[in-house]
Amino acid sequence: MADFQGPGGDGDRIWTAALVVIGDEILSGRTQDANLAYLARWLNIQGIRLKEARVVADDAAAIGAAVTACLDAHDYVFTTGGIGPTHDDITVDAIAAAMGVPVVHHPDAVAILTRYYGDRITEARLRMARVPEGAELVPNPETGAPGIRLGRLFILAGVPKITQGMLRGLDGQLAGGRPVLSRAVGAWAQESAVADLLAQVQTDHDGVQVGSYPFWRDGKGGANFVLRSVDDAQLGRAVEALKRALTAQGIDAQEGEI
Amino acid sequence: MADFQGPGGDGDRIWTAALVVIGDEILSGRTQDANLAYLARWLNIQGIRLKEARVVADDAAAIGAAVTACLDAHDYVFTTGGIGPTHDDITVDAIAAAMGVPVVHHPDAVAILTRYYGDRITEARLRMARVPEGAELVPNPETGAPGIRLGRLFILAGVPKITQGMLRGLDGQLAGGRPVLSRAVGAWAQESAVADLLAQVQTDHDGVQVGSYPFWRDGKGGANFVLRSVDDAQLGRAVEALKRALTAQGIDAQEGEI
Repeated sequence: MADFQGPGGDGDRIWTAALVVIGDEILSGRTQDANLAYLARWLNIQGIRLKEARVVADDAAAIGAAVTACLDAHDYVFTTGGIGPTHDDITVDAIAAAMGVPVVHHPDAVAILTRYYGDRITEARLRMARVPEGAELVPNPETGAPGIRLGRLFILAGVPKITQGMLRGLDGQLAGGRPVLSRAVGAWAQESAVADLLAQVQTDHDGVQVGSYPFWRDGKGGANFVLRSVDDAQLGRAVEALKRALTAQGIDAQEGEI
Repeated sequence: MADFQGPGGDGDRIWTAALVVIGDEILSGRTQDANLAYLARWLNIQGIRLKEARVVADDAAAIGAAVTACLDAHDYVFTTGGIGPTHDDITVDAIAAAMGVPVVHHPDAVAILTRYYGDRITEARLRMARVPEGAELVPNPETGAPGIRLGRLFILAGVPKITQGMLRGLDGQLAGGRPVLSRAVGAWAQESAVADLLAQVQTDHDGVQVGSYPFWRDGKGGANFVLRSVDDAQLGRAVEALKRALTAQGIDAQEGEI
């Protein structure tokens, strides 16, 4: 659980986050989610690890349950989707209900939307000024309608360009630890042929995680081994050890992904 | 919960499924998941709705908790990832532990792998024959190493080409209901300008869901409205009503996405 003191803070503590993706269009296969990967990389720069993601339907009970469970387990929770002006945009209501707070029109959001739409402002458009009571706004540099921050919970738009704009505005504002560094070793080897060697490198290097990602290309099997650690020096030792071990088996290995 | 009687069965019952995506590479943003959208569409053809997805790390407790929770809530659960030969492939062990059953080598899987690898068979490669006790195999037409079926739970590979091959083998084998049909109406209108009208069409047509998916293109705002129902005739009536209502407002609307 987060003990908020602003950015910086204890570099050894691991800060975690969860993402709740909201939308029938993702679960029907109509739309490919693009926010998870972007958020994961953005969080890593803030020194926060994305530990879990859930995709839920446009269903108030499902949204409320997922957000509540993720807030219990992680320092931060982000949601994407369901904050537009139409009847299927129910994220704010679902979260407010789950938290037992009323939904109110945020005066600053009303002002932003009125400025943005001018005399084309309508009740439907003013839906986008509704927030759970006590929330702050997250600026939206793309289209006006803001995101919402409620303590450790960030309620963001679903359209990737808008989501990314909102995250840019949050850059450097969240308390986090050290970012995870990663380096890759690519090899023209089947991962099953070098499984023992990979496990050994991980065992020998405390705090380094070794992932193995096989591929087939032009009828040949290969794998990228991705090493991750918050400790740059230790990561370098593990990369060298892995390259040596692969070369000793006569395997063509290089730094970087292939 | 599923009452298994094989394919067919009660067409009005809604069959649901959940997907658990397993892998640090997804949560780090390194790899973009491609299985959710494919599985969603494949399930729809089987008359089953994907209602929830979770992405969890290569962590036994997280995998076990997600699979257990999803089995409690849905008819079917699918997992992707973590069934290869390396030390970070822990899906089988995590699920067996969560279910309180031992892990055993499935004799048919041992035979398949021995045939596939010939005298290059190793202990690491034989890891891919390990299953929770009581499981059946799901054939893998791509690379030999099979997937696993344990009642309502399907443990599949993470590499999309292999996942898709395994799903093809399961075509028509799962009990389901009627597939959800969908039709789209595209319009050069901002969704916030037609929010009331969309809600009205949904209210007027029982069993039809209307989703609104805005876009910006060439500096112009538009939206695709996707209507979904299991009832083809009712869906057609809703599409016509929506087109009429948009046209009455002077909005250029057409059937199909734009």
